[in-house]
Amino acid sequence: MSNEPIALDEALASFDALWSPRIVARVNDYDVRIAKVAGEHLWHVHDDTDEFFLVLDGELHIAMREPSGEHAVRLPKGAVFTIPRGTEHKPSAPAGATILMFEPSGTSTVGDRHDMVPDHIDATTGHALTDR
Amino acid sequence: MSNEPIALDEALASFDALWSPRIVARVNDYDVRIAKVAGEHLWHVHDDTDEFFLVLDGELHIAMREPSGEHAVRLPKGAVFTIPRGTEHKPSAPAGATILMFEPSGTSTVGDRHDMVPDHIDATTGHALTDR
Repeated sequence: MSNEPIALDEALASFDALWSPRIVARVNDYDVRIAKVAGEHLWHVHDDTDEFFLVLDGELHIAMREPSGEHAVRLPKGAVFTIPRGTEHKPSAPAGATILMFEPSGTSTVGDRHDMVPDHIDATTGHALTDR
Repeated sequence: MSNEPIALDEALASFDALWSPRIVARVNDYDVRIAKVAGEHLWHVHDDTDEFFLVLDGELHIAMREPSGEHAVRLPKGAVFTIPRGTEHKPSAPAGATILMFEPSGTSTVGDRHDMVPDHIDATTGHALTDR
């Protein structure tokens, strides 16, 4: 992991893949990941961890299935939100977004239980910023 | 902790204190904190945890004392950096900055070992966003 500061705009310019997070920093046994997203992700659950989102640009929607029913939150640029562990959720970004996430290293983008993974979704624990 | 998204600009508008982080989200046993900073913090060390910084606005400098000597990094807006555990460091922001931090809940702003805490520094594990 880099021992120099990383500019997020340069890091974002180094890849194009959607729903395919890059790890920009490590904090103890957690990763800081950034991703470009557009369209729909898939319903999935992280049984053992919360998942934090910060919207760097655009707008992220996150649908959630809770005991009280299905609902969604909208995160405009500059908004933060934590999905509690065990909550089935589906991120989407109709007009595209760039996001930053905090979660334990090794956390899969598709969680522990999920719908069939469509071709446009990268099931990964995050990629290195290899282009730097 | 809120179960609704929080807009960082609104959260930042809710307080004026410098070097006095507000907790905007929790992720497992970690906090996401935001702070307004200007001038100098103090030399301190977190013996048992890394500390992550994202600069939301302005420019943050972080001086570090390492075996190879003292040096500093500059983080402009949009830059990220992790201070490794055990590294003595002193943040400063000559022209002011707003920052986001990620660290274990209960981590003190002045670390486990530190210089005498000057009046303008808030020795805290983070405050709730009480004005919301």
